[in-house]
Amino acid sequence: MKTFFTRIKGSVTAPRGFRAAGIAAGLKANGKKDMALIVSNEPATVAATFTTNQVKAAPVKLSMRHVKNGKACAIIANSGNANACTGNAGRIHARAMAVAVARRLGCSENRVLVCSTGRIGVSMPIVKVESGIKRLLGILSSRGGATAAEAIMTTDTFAKEIAVQFKAGGKTIRVGGIAKGAGMIQPNMATMLCFLTTDAAIPRAALQKALTHAVKHSFNRVTVDGDTSTNDTVILLANGEAGAPPLAKFQEALDFVCLELAKMIVRDGEGVTKFVTINVHGAASDQHAEMAARAVANSVLVKTSWCGGDSNWGRILDAVGYSRARVVEDRVDIAYNGVPAVRRGMATRTPLAKLKKIVAQPTFTIDIHLHLGHGHCTMHTCDLTERYVELNKGE
Amino acid sequence: MKTFFTRIKGSVTAPRGFRAAGIAAGLKANGKKDMALIVSNEPATVAATFTTNQVKAAPVKLSMRHVKNGKACAIIANSGNANACTGNAGRIHARAMAVAVARRLGCSENRVLVCSTGRIGVSMPIVKVESGIKRLLGILSSRGGATAAEAIMTTDTFAKEIAVQFKAGGKTIRVGGIAKGAGMIQPNMATMLCFLTTDAAIPRAALQKALTHAVKHSFNRVTVDGDTSTNDTVILLANGEAGAPPLAKFQEALDFVCLELAKMIVRDGEGVTKFVTINVHGAASDQHAEMAARAVANSVLVKTSWCGGDSNWGRILDAVGYSRARVVEDRVDIAYNGVPAVRRGMATRTPLAKLKKIVAQPTFTIDIHLHLGHGHCTMHTCDLTERYVELNKGE
Repeated sequence: MKTFFTRIKGSVTAPRGFRAAGIAAGLKANGKKDMALIVSNEPATVAATFTTNQVKAAPVKLSMRHVKNGKACAIIANSGNANACTGNAGRIHARAMAVAVARRLGCSENRVLVCSTGRIGVSMPIVKVESGIKRLLGILSSRGGATAAEAIMTTDTFAKEIAVQFKAGGKTIRVGGIAKGAGMIQPNMATMLCFLTTDAAIPRAALQKALTHAVKHSFNRVTVDGDTSTNDTVILLANGEAGAPPLAKFQEALDFVCLELAKMIVRDGEGVTKFVTINVHGAASDQHAEMAARAVANSVLVKTSWCGGDSNWGRILDAVGYSRARVVEDRVDIAYNGVPAVRRGMATRTPLAKLKKIVAQPTFTIDIHLHLGHGHCTMHTCDLTERYVELNKGE
Repeated sequence: MKTFFTRIKGSVTAPRGFRAAGIAAGLKANGKKDMALIVSNEPATVAATFTTNQVKAAPVKLSMRHVKNGKACAIIANSGNANACTGNAGRIHARAMAVAVARRLGCSENRVLVCSTGRIGVSMPIVKVESGIKRLLGILSSRGGATAAEAIMTTDTFAKEIAVQFKAGGKTIRVGGIAKGAGMIQPNMATMLCFLTTDAAIPRAALQKALTHAVKHSFNRVTVDGDTSTNDTVILLANGEAGAPPLAKFQEALDFVCLELAKMIVRDGEGVTKFVTINVHGAASDQHAEMAARAVANSVLVKTSWCGGDSNWGRILDAVGYSRARVVEDRVDIAYNGVPAVRRGMATRTPLAKLKKIVAQPTFTIDIHLHLGHGHCTMHTCDLTERYVELNKGE
């Protein structure tokens, strides 16, 4: 695909005016990096989306309040402890993290956002965290994006970073991001975190609108296991250092950055061996398309069949059928990488061996056409393997 | 629990006036029994519930039409082939099965119900099926319930049978049933089938109402993997030979029979090592309670944690939070076998080791109290193990 933007090295510190750092503060028993700090030299316009879970971690509640101010100077994040279901102590600890950063940066505490991921229901080791914050502030660097990306990892097997740039009116605009995926430390809760930065100048309402659009078509279109965490957070900081680009161009670049990070999360899902794209076409509406795509992408039976390289379209048709999307059985077409498997609700003459060869690949696409309207949805998902169970079953 | 009814031996042929048989007709490659026939000597009043999946197998569509007549003489069932997504040929084959039974029984074809379970999208080997029907009719017996139960098994590891009897007005009323659970032959579709018989005399509308109630609180309250099959069917035949019992007593006996069969299905779920009962109390409504219970019972992360014997209440609270049930985090209590793990949304002082000991047992109960109203729901579910993935991943 030819685009007006180009990928560049780095992530959250690729846009001008951002610094970051990541360190091991002792929250993870294995000694790996567990605290990250991202700072904008000037107060940045902020947009964010948070978990829809009714049970929200203390840092989520705090950050939801702080983003209302419209400006943020820093994101302080830790892995190793979710600070969720921790009551009043949790609220105090989340606030203490914001205060510790704000005091040393000389900004107001409500301009600091806090994110945590890790075990639920365990008290934060706040002394370690506060001394970690002090160290982070001492090593902040405009090349620190990579260590920050590392510090938010849990069972992720690789750090997730991306950055792009494009020219607009003689200025170079950059958008970068880091993310962590579905992982856990010990028997723990998976959390999706994503921090995005840009040096574009975008008014707050437009920035939030752009982020909401990008998240809808990226993070909200991927699923590993169908479980929505208490801590999911996406934050976008725009410091305006590079001036104001056309919104359409900024949106396209942001959409790309978010979708690439979301795909990385699926590829790095626990125990994953297959990356599968589900396209639902011709649904009664976009919402119906999403319901059908989500039912297929989350079906335990569909996901386990892929893990064995089995093109079990019967399970896909079954999942489409029990979704709340309107379905007329004898109109449904299903194709694997464009090879028709089902036509009008029945098997085509495509040899099973041909379909199995496609599903044996690490990446493939399934197109489902309902022939009822113009609704469309694309979801990215993965297989469910023995290794996933092994990783999540605790001791 | 003291009840007015007692369990007796047998199943669908325990009530008077029913005969059954099961044979191997060659539909299963492994030579195991794959065809079952249940016959009521006199036309019986019929009630039934069918899959809510919009994609319905040919035999489901046919049986849905036939039960509208209100009377049925026989149920012909096969494992080894679902006759789903088979188009016009599938419709012809399903009808041919009803016709073959009806002709030899001397009844109308619309008094014969047809059920199939097995691989989706494969044409029925109708010659084998028709010769199987001929053989079944020759060996029908009032002690044939056990072989019929065996013939509807797929990957079930034991046949699921139950019968009870009670006295009412000097008469002995019997209710019996057989069921098959979540299983598959080769990479295949799980289907839940249940056939119930009674010699009670119950008018049709009351019979359907009784069955709907029983199914709601049994088969609709269990889940193995959250996938709803294209072929799920529950049929109840009441031939009236023992006269009319008080409806309340009949309902209680029927509820018991259905719940016991439903629990057997969970216990025999693929790869299952734990049988878990989820009670949600104090929800805003019964519907909210069901949404919360179902979210927990179907959460892949919750189910995998049980498999390792991990009392990961964080994942339970997370699932309750993302269900559509109304939840106020700091009101939620969670207990394992009565031992409090969470109180007002936070960990109690119960040592983790004590909770783990409970989850290490093959059967345990989790009570979740939302403290918002009087809504209640009980669901029975199981763990998700590596063995489940292995069984379902195809070759």
